Amino acid sequence: MDDIVIHYLERPKLKKPIFIEGLPGIGNVGKLAAEHLIDQLGAKKFAEIVSKYFPPQVMVLDGGLIKLVNNELYYAKDVGKGVDIIFLVGDYQGMNPEGQYEITDFILRVLAEFGVEEIFTLGGYGVGKIVEKPRVLGAATEEDLVKEMEGYGVVFSRVDSGTGIVGASGLLLGLGALHNMRSVCFMGETSGYFVDPKSARAVLDVLIQALDLEIDFSELEDKAKQIDVITSRLREAEVKPDEPTGGKDLGYIG
Amino acid sequence: MDDIVIHYLERPKLKKPIFIEGLPGIGNVGKLAAEHLIDQLGAKKFAEIVSKYFPPQVMVLDGGLIKLVNNELYYAKDVGKGVDIIFLVGDYQGMNPEGQYEITDFILRVLAEFGVEEIFTLGGYGVGKIVEKPRVLGAATEEDLVKEMEGYGVVFSRVDSGTGIVGASGLLLGLGALHNMRSVCFMGETSGYFVDPKSARAVLDVLIQALDLEIDFSELEDKAKQIDVITSRLREAEVKPDEPTGGKDLGYIG
Amino acid sequence: MDDIVIHYLERPKLKKPIFIEGLPGIGNVGKLAAEHLIDQLGAKKFAEIVSKYFPPQVMVLDGGLIKLVNNELYYAKDVGKGVDIIFLVGDYQGMNPEGQYEITDFILRVLAEFGVEEIFTLGGYGVGKIVEKPRVLGAATEEDLVKEMEGYGVVFSRVDSGTGIVGASGLLLGLGALHNMRSVCFMGETSGYFVDPKSARAVLDVLIQALDLEIDFSELEDKAKQIDVITSRLREAEVKPDEPTGGKDLGYIG
Amino acid sequence: MDDIVIHYLERPKLKKPIFIEGLPGIGNVGKLAAEHLIDQLGAKKFAEIVSKYFPPQVMVLDGGLIKLVNNELYYAKDVGKGVDIIFLVGDYQGMNPEGQYEITDFILRVLAEFGVEEIFTLGGYGVGKIVEKPRVLGAATEEDLVKEMEGYGVVFSRVDSGTGIVGASGLLLGLGALHNMRSVCFMGETSGYFVDPKSARAVLDVLIQALDLEIDFSELEDKAKQIDVITSRLREAEVKPDEPTGGKDLGYIG
Repeated sequence: MDDIVIHYLERPKLKKPIFIEGLPGIGNVGKLAAEHLIDQLGAKKFAEIVSKYFPPQVMVLDGGLIKLVNNELYYAKDVGKGVDIIFLVGDYQGMNPEGQYEITDFILRVLAEFGVEEIFTLGGYGVGKIVEKPRVLGAATEEDLVKEMEGYGVVFSRVDSGTGIVGASGLLLGLGALHNMRSVCFMGETSGYFVDPKSARAVLDVLIQALDLEIDFSELEDKAKQIDVITSRLREAEVKPDEPTGGKDLGYIG
Repeated sequence: MDDIVIHYLERPKLKKPIFIEGLPGIGNVGKLAAEHLIDQLGAKKFAEIVSKYFPPQVMVLDGGLIKLVNNELYYAKDVGKGVDIIFLVGDYQGMNPEGQYEITDFILRVLAEFGVEEIFTLGGYGVGKIVEKPRVLGAATEEDLVKEMEGYGVVFSRVDSGTGIVGASGLLLGLGALHNMRSVCFMGETSGYFVDPKSARAVLDVLIQALDLEIDFSELEDKAKQIDVITSRLREAEVKPDEPTGGKDLGYIG
Repeated sequence: MDDIVIHYLERPKLKKPIFIEGLPGIGNVGKLAAEHLIDQLGAKKFAEIVSKYFPPQVMVLDGGLIKLVNNELYYAKDVGKGVDIIFLVGDYQGMNPEGQYEITDFILRVLAEFGVEEIFTLGGYGVGKIVEKPRVLGAATEEDLVKEMEGYGVVFSRVDSGTGIVGASGLLLGLGALHNMRSVCFMGETSGYFVDPKSARAVLDVLIQALDLEIDFSELEDKAKQIDVITSRLREAEVKPDEPTGGKDLGYIG
Repeated sequence: MDDIVIHYLERPKLKKPIFIEGLPGIGNVGKLAAEHLIDQLGAKKFAEIVSKYFPPQVMVLDGGLIKLVNNELYYAKDVGKGVDIIFLVGDYQGMNPEGQYEITDFILRVLAEFGVEEIFTLGGYGVGKIVEKPRVLGAATEEDLVKEMEGYGVVFSRVDSGTGIVGASGLLLGLGALHNMRSVCFMGETSGYFVDPKSARAVLDVLIQALDLEIDFSELEDKAKQIDVITSRLREAEVKPDEPTGGKDLGYIG
């Protein structure tokens, strides 16, 4: 079989669409944010990607039907002030470095066909402790993008851990630059111990400014409250979760 | 060498054969079930598959002769109410994700040549404790298959662990669907600590209903009794086996 | 670069040469045996094999010159009662399953060009304790080879561990059979804790009978005495080495 | 995407340039040395190499701009007594054996195009304890290079650990010899616990003699002093760092 296979359900006509990535990662921040946006904008699935770089695995859905693990592309047309968007979400990122490079390059070629020139990747930034008010850290391929996003409250600075941004959220920027795509990565601060809807909300707060969108957050807020209940109980019980990679210097896998 | 090599001992003519997979996995449930069926139906080996995705290893048989580790295809003609069957059994599954995808795809192409349109994959579902009366959990590619198999007592529901079905038993369904094959996976509940002929029996009880077969179970029952003796002694001695992945939430590797 | 590269120093003309493999493995039994034989027969290096399946590494020799890690082929002409022999020795076996398969297949193709029809692979069989009088266990591709080698005292029986023979010594038999080569593997019992010249001697005692050779063992005996001194001191001091894989059931990596 | 991609910023015309490698490794000795030399000689970046054998990762620079992890080539023209030099530095070495071989082979082919016939690789040699006056150990492809470098105080001897030289610094010599390149590896003794500018200085002291260069060391000396302060504090506090691979026998990864 081919290493990566894309199956189109539909081939939408899109005008210079913006691309937004939200694959699983730390705190599932990017995934939560992208899926919430897909939901709120009524975006439509148009392609499925399977690959030997994903785990050899099917998910079992309610009712007992199966779904091969995959990545999926959605589109939304003419949202906000008239922008088209392509979304990438999925069950997994590529399972090894080669897979990460191959899948990212594959997706960038697909995006180029659709005329994508601008990319937003969404992820979490693990800080090793519970964060009350998560900031959104950023990285970008162009200085004018840094300037613009700073205006929406994004914090741009050297990522201390020496690891930089690992995974799809980083690689889309790095390889995207070779395809002349302008890209920004938003990373919501998160503990790294829980899925983090509050951090996803922080990331979306920035993104909707950048794209001039209006969406409802009540569903995400409900999820955030549920997690808050759990984490505050943990704190009361003075249960201190193990720090997986040593406090502040947590690298980022997005 | 080619990544996967098939050597045909014979090229049987088969009429829309059913395919049944029983490779090694949790409790060796699928392997025991498929091998018992091969034995009872007098199925005949017609092909051997070797691959660099298997371990670099030979088995030493009684008498000192060697056998390169492989997967094997058997066929049975005109069994039950006139159905032809192809069986897949073997020493190992592919050793890494790429190997799992490549070998499964390779086998599906072979099956397509033989006209296979329907697949049954057999495996175990680890529950982390000894099960008196193992249920058979199912997953399928089509709703009518779910309905039909529920009639034979199979339980269809979302697999809780979040892992879904890992390995050949799942991938044959997921990739098989891309080849338009209708597939069901039967997973017999099993502790995960022992090879489990009782769980294999439970899986076969369902399968023979689905295929309208009649077979003798005395050999499998003998094996089950031997295991029962061992496990009941363990319980008397209050030896509690280590729980490898934390009780109920054990994922499934089939 | 090509995955595997062979560089010929010479292309000897050989008459249906016997092939003997002695790569590193448990107790370095095969390596010691093959290198001793190369030394005693004055065999000559004629080819070097480098590969990306070996570690990315050079050895530093006395005098500070380097040598890229490799496998090497030697030949001896008209030894014993007029037989030609090709030897395979080296620094490493392939580092992963794919490499093991690819390198073994590559070497078998080279051997086929030289007219090899018979293979002896040499290795150790780990038993997890110090062995006074190591037996030589065997495995073969043909029943008449089993019979003949039993005449020289080799023990043929199912290898208990369920692992069979892992690595080059096994794979040469398994893949060699696909090339219609008749093969025997000799495995000298060894503790698995030390390099074991005594076990290498036991393997050679069998091999020289099979090939009708006469060689001097004094050098190997000297090495064996040195190891004996070390191991007897260990026993006096009642230092019991850790049992790496649990006693008798030690698998074999040859 | 191609496994390894080179992007030229410029194609300098060079006369039989010397090649110097300083990728990350033990104590970052080679990296520090090569980067200091690039800085002092005003060498100019002329090519960037990205590869799926590097981690799937971007670095975040000051100001929030990203850089895909890579290797970089620099050149300096007509330095010292009229020699041209090509430098290789970078964020990472290849992440697995295959990547190490492929990237090294790729770079050697690039170097051959530029007419390189002589290679210096720079690295650290871990000794497991703090070294007051690091010696420079050497390995080479030719005896006359050994003689010449001994004249500059380099110590050539068998590397005891049995591991030899692992990674780019070794492989460039081993594979370079297959391209008929004359090569020397300089390894500065280093504890293995810290980045080690003092060891990098020792390596450069040798290299500038070999190439007849004059450079300023004040920056490297400043860095060395900072590390000295840290290590002497550690010793006062009698904090003994863990010995990662057991004292003297530390292998070398360069």
